Amino acid sequence: MKQSAEINGRIRVAIEAVTPEIDDGRFPIKRTIGEPVVVQADIFADGHDAVSAILLYRTAREKSWNELSMRHIGNDRWEEMFYIREMCNYYYTLQAWVDHFHTWQRDVQKKANAGQDIRVDLLIGAEYIEGAAERATREDEKKLREYARLIRAGSDPSQGLSCALDQEITRLMAAYPDKTYTASYAKTLAVTVDRTKALFSTWYEIFPRSCSADPQMPGTFRDCARLLPEIAKLGFDVLYFPPIHPIGKVNRKGKNNTPASEQHDPGSPWAIGSADGGHKAVEPSLGALDDFRQLVKEAGTHGIEIALDIAYQCSPDHPYLTEHPEWFKKRPDGTVQFAENPPKKYEDIVPFHFETENWQDLREELRSIILFWIEQGVRIFRVDNPHTKPFAFWDWLIKEIKQACPEVIFLAEAFTRPKVMSRLAKAGFTQSYTYFTWRNTKREITDYLTELTQTECREYFRPNFWPNTPDILPEFLQYGGPPAFLIKLVLAATLSSSYGIFSPSFEQCITDALPGKEEYLDSEKFEIKHWDWNKPGTIRELIARINKIRRENPALQTTWNLQFYDVDNDYLLFYGKATPDLSNIILVVVNLDPFHAQAGWLTIPLGKLGIDPAQTYLVHDLISNDKHLWQGERNFFEINPAVMPASIFRVHRRLRREEDFDYFM
Amino acid sequence: MKQSAEINGRIRVAIEAVTPEIDDGRFPIKRTIGEPVVVQADIFADGHDAVSAILLYRTAREKSWNELSMRHIGNDRWEEMFYIREMCNYYYTLQAWVDHFHTWQRDVQKKANAGQDIRVDLLIGAEYIEGAAERATREDEKKLREYARLIRAGSDPSQGLSCALDQEITRLMAAYPDKTYTASYAKTLAVTVDRTKALFSTWYEIFPRSCSADPQMPGTFRDCARLLPEIAKLGFDVLYFPPIHPIGKVNRKGKNNTPASEQHDPGSPWAIGSADGGHKAVEPSLGALDDFRQLVKEAGTHGIEIALDIAYQCSPDHPYLTEHPEWFKKRPDGTVQFAENPPKKYEDIVPFHFETENWQDLREELRSIILFWIEQGVRIFRVDNPHTKPFAFWDWLIKEIKQACPEVIFLAEAFTRPKVMSRLAKAGFTQSYTYFTWRNTKREITDYLTELTQTECREYFRPNFWPNTPDILPEFLQYGGPPAFLIKLVLAATLSSSYGIFSPSFEQCITDALPGKEEYLDSEKFEIKHWDWNKPGTIRELIARINKIRRENPALQTTWNLQFYDVDNDYLLFYGKATPDLSNIILVVVNLDPFHAQAGWLTIPLGKLGIDPAQTYLVHDLISNDKHLWQGERNFFEINPAVMPASIFRVHRRLRREEDFDYFM
Repeated sequence: MKQSAEINGRIRVAIEAVTPEIDDGRFPIKRTIGEPVVVQADIFADGHDAVSAILLYRTAREKSWNELSMRHIGNDRWEEMFYIREMCNYYYTLQAWVDHFHTWQRDVQKKANAGQDIRVDLLIGAEYIEGAAERATREDEKKLREYARLIRAGSDPSQGLSCALDQEITRLMAAYPDKTYTASYAKTLAVTVDRTKALFSTWYEIFPRSCSADPQMPGTFRDCARLLPEIAKLGFDVLYFPPIHPIGKVNRKGKNNTPASEQHDPGSPWAIGSADGGHKAVEPSLGALDDFRQLVKEAGTHGIEIALDIAYQCSPDHPYLTEHPEWFKKRPDGTVQFAENPPKKYEDIVPFHFETENWQDLREELRSIILFWIEQGVRIFRVDNPHTKPFAFWDWLIKEIKQACPEVIFLAEAFTRPKVMSRLAKAGFTQSYTYFTWRNTKREITDYLTELTQTECREYFRPNFWPNTPDILPEFLQYGGPPAFLIKLVLAATLSSSYGIFSPSFEQCITDALPGKEEYLDSEKFEIKHWDWNKPGTIRELIARINKIRRENPALQTTWNLQFYDVDNDYLLFYGKATPDLSNIILVVVNLDPFHAQAGWLTIPLGKLGIDPAQTYLVHDLISNDKHLWQGERNFFEINPAVMPASIFRVHRRLRREEDFDYFM
Repeated sequence: MKQSAEINGRIRVAIEAVTPEIDDGRFPIKRTIGEPVVVQADIFADGHDAVSAILLYRTAREKSWNELSMRHIGNDRWEEMFYIREMCNYYYTLQAWVDHFHTWQRDVQKKANAGQDIRVDLLIGAEYIEGAAERATREDEKKLREYARLIRAGSDPSQGLSCALDQEITRLMAAYPDKTYTASYAKTLAVTVDRTKALFSTWYEIFPRSCSADPQMPGTFRDCARLLPEIAKLGFDVLYFPPIHPIGKVNRKGKNNTPASEQHDPGSPWAIGSADGGHKAVEPSLGALDDFRQLVKEAGTHGIEIALDIAYQCSPDHPYLTEHPEWFKKRPDGTVQFAENPPKKYEDIVPFHFETENWQDLREELRSIILFWIEQGVRIFRVDNPHTKPFAFWDWLIKEIKQACPEVIFLAEAFTRPKVMSRLAKAGFTQSYTYFTWRNTKREITDYLTELTQTECREYFRPNFWPNTPDILPEFLQYGGPPAFLIKLVLAATLSSSYGIFSPSFEQCITDALPGKEEYLDSEKFEIKHWDWNKPGTIRELIARINKIRRENPALQTTWNLQFYDVDNDYLLFYGKATPDLSNIILVVVNLDPFHAQAGWLTIPLGKLGIDPAQTYLVHDLISNDKHLWQGERNFFEINPAVMPASIFRVHRRLRREEDFDYFM
């Protein structure tokens, strides 16, 4: 669509400020199947002539563009949208031109209204119509020529005028516009398309080695398989394992990350590689590769996908160190540089040296690791510390993998600086950990979610909310106990359509931390646990209920529809989500104070929710099963965290008597 | 600065969100001599390594870049600035790299502080220093090698450490950085540089034909010359004339824009061209071309530049219509299409048809008009209706003219839609008319000036504020009378560093309008006036005083330093401007109500103005010559518009007794 210099000077339309467009179009936006792409642009010409604009879009498989007429939404801003229907990349761009016929229709009407002589004007219109006839199908050409004849022939200009303005000619002329001097937007913008799970996913993280029913034995993949029905009942659809590869023996860490390990310390799973193999091998105590493949299959029958951890780093005894010493940084004393963030030392881990001369070989090998696990049936990868590898590497790797296997989902473990986190999302990570873990007050949560959902960020950064991880037991959970766990659970599960928990620590509300730190005491990272998976008094039932609510309410299956509403108490957070057709409306009230009951007046946005202010409406708390008949915009509500710190209301509009009756029975 | 694929994978720094950058760098920013260009960018690498970044800039005359180290201002944002010193275009771009030596210095210190063994680390540092020695001048190489030797040799690591961290080695290493894997920003951004008058100019618009001292004769250039000393005394430095070309006789308009003109109606100067010539000729009644050249010279001796009107349109009897009929649009009846905006008709004007096949010839001719007047000594052009000519035409024309004559200033008469106005500024117009003419309330003025001075707009759009024009006598002036004229005068002259008035209508506070319209009754556009240039009771003295205040106070000679301050009365507007060194501080209070006295508490930003809250400070009203000794942040002030609707205070800080004494004497 390049424009020849020959006509350049006659192109009069400007197309500017196109959205969405990330970094001048350098990075694609992201969508899942079924989501819309709403494109806007400033489009205008010199003078008073009317402008027409089209949105062009196509899938990577299509050779030609689909065209949609854009509409003017005020102040020279234009808009149109298309929906993602196929599982492949999409492209879009814009065209616009001065629409002489439309200008003429508008002006000839104004002149006629002012009683001016329009006889010559009608001839001009006839010329435009004859021009369109040249571009038309034979059938339409006939119609167009007949219109031109009628407009020319009329001895009564008012007859010609009504002919010139009728719906059929307007439609026909729009079908054959004169696009000789069309402005084509200089860039073609891309959409990365992911499957639905990229947007709506519910993650459960466990250490397989902690899954044994036998307190003397470490857990295996077979033990994990036994837990699958229960995990499915809890409502999770992604089961994520820390690295399952052989753990290094050299400099292996002991309990609580102590430098010297005891004889039987199992080591951190992130210290990958030993004589037993590296990133493409399985830690022997967990089982064989076949066991893993079997587990992946069994999980599938429960609607669960296994997600693997990709940690691009090695233990000092990883085979790569002898096979490819050039991939690691040597110190002047001949030793290999282990990982450090001075004064912190990670002696059990050696980073890859991405500035190596052999960076291209290294890249290929790192790609082959992902391809290997794809072959074993894995489609979801949680990437450890992506912010310590070059952006250019991720740009390349994710593109390569998505080309080979479009359904792959990458979750970035990025709790790093905001700009770095954002750049990793642009590099192609499907989902990202966020700062949610540390957002506790109404102001913090509102500001952060507004940034995530109301700014350009929403086009490429999909949040995945984690209240805890093996690395992080936040102060809020440590101090707040079970109500705090429930608060963070409801927030994570309803603010973001993807969330995850590290369990059973989460469901058992474990609050034992290293003193003065946000880290678990006796962390599973360094020892094998034997959990009582059926311990009474946990919050398992509530987790299951909330995941069920998410599954049954489409409004909660996206993050982009979030709206905050007013409540006159800073400890109460009030927000809602609804499907575009308002057939599913969810309102959530959370008491952010885990210790005290809080109450306030909620302001329900009746207009936006399509609720008649004169009628009652039913709000049904899907957690407690309580029902309330509310009326009007303001309703008083109190939440006692000792009972349950949140309500998730489904709103039923336009309630009639007889329905009330049925519903309450 | 293109990067080879060979090293691409090892480049780890990202450079994003560069400001200023207009439309992905498609359009240059604008500056005048002496103004700074403050460049910011998000710059960051993966991991924890230190990053170094430089701002590169050069003039169009320089072949190599000047380099400035950027500094980190928080959240991965970096900043540096340069000043415009030469009257030519400037260019700027950025580079950044992972700074291994700086990283090492930071880390080795942390390790030493933690009591860790740093002996091997010192060897690594020595290697970095030896690397830099390879890049250094012979002299510095010697120094560097000596440092490396000392660091290697030390049997006491703490000696090596203090050596590694000393100032001299830090400076030397910064001078010879390892830039092997440098990220270069993909774009080179441009700065259009204008002379100072582009930013600070004071315009006086008159119709030369109304300047005659003889009530029987039309005014001539010689009459204009007689007015020059008085105009200079009023403090104007640009004298702008509506078109001075022969006026068409065909369809000439009569008094008050009536369609049929009387025998002696002079016609609108914007209906350009007759048998006497076109855009390169002078209306015979005004004098000869030589007279005009003489006037330009004489004006120069008074510090006044003559600005001409460029109206790219023709009267029906312009010679172009016979010489180049292809530049005009023909109607099917063989007539030429006159200008219209249905139902409005402008029968005395024929627009150029910019979509003509011969658009390139047309362009050349239109350029030659400007070049012709440049030859006659004109350097300032006010362009009529630029929004009815293609943007691509202005992109080309202004670039061509500025290349031929960089000191040319183009003022765009653009009162059109915001996006169009903005696009014309991007096309290269040096200054633009604005919506100031219709901004009257505190909210309107504050919002609009915030948009003009605090958004990206300030980088390319220079406002020129006009309270009235021959086309516009706004309601606020019609209803408010002389106080309203003074309100708009002070606002225009102090909010914007460029402003203009159409006179003597403005100074004589003429309020006679066409009924129900914002247009002058008996407009000078259609008739010759004979003004009493020395009429008593006008606001001439105040205009002269305010222009003197502008000349004597550098704070008022830029628009970009504007700050609004708080006052608790919505009819009072309170704002200030100061030079960067605070040597000149101006505070302005305007009563926006032309009918009633208004009073309120002003909040003076003592901290920002460097005023000690414990001391008194003198505010000297440069309009009334009143002086006040204020103290503290809040001061009460009342303005009676019947006396004077505004105060322009010069603030004198850190007043000492003896100075008070002198000042009040």
